[in-house]
Amino acid sequence: MARFMDIHRGMQGITADQLMAAHQADLAIEQEESVHFEHAWADPESGTVYCLSEAPSAEAVQRVHERAGHRADEVHPVPLQV
Amino acid sequence: MARFMDIHRGMQGITADQLMAAHQADLAIEQEESVHFEHAWADPESGTVYCLSEAPSAEAVQRVHERAGHRADEVHPVPLQV
Repeated sequence: MARFMDIHRGMQGITADQLMAAHQADLAIEQEESVHFEHAWADPESGTVYCLSEAPSAEAVQRVHERAGHRADEVHPVPLQV
Repeated sequence: MARFMDIHRGMQGITADQLMAAHQADLAIEQEESVHFEHAWADPESGTVYCLSEAPSAEAVQRVHERAGHRADEVHPVPLQV
């Protein structure tokens, strides 16, 4: 398992309820891909959402996001952490 | 206080020790700007570093990073979190 940061753009105006609903949609199916979404942070003004996950691969992260209806624009492994 | 995500690019090849040293350099002076850097994640391959902080403003975040010798390429407020 590795850690990933993914980024969604174009989410201007996202609300706390919408962020929670999107996160719950990921959580509902993540086990099928052995992914766990740990946190998400959003900037409604720039329309950027950052998701931190543990997953077997970037492709697995993207598959969960796609099936939940919100494909990520970028998925990066982040093997280093402090 | 608000939460911010900032991004540094062009850090290809960054090591765990270098990430820790950069983070420690921030921690050493962050109180002067009432900032606290909570976490940082790095992708040595794409050269991207993500920092999560609590701070009074994006400008305060940037001032700490600049004084520590590593100006951020982007600083975004992330008022929403799950």
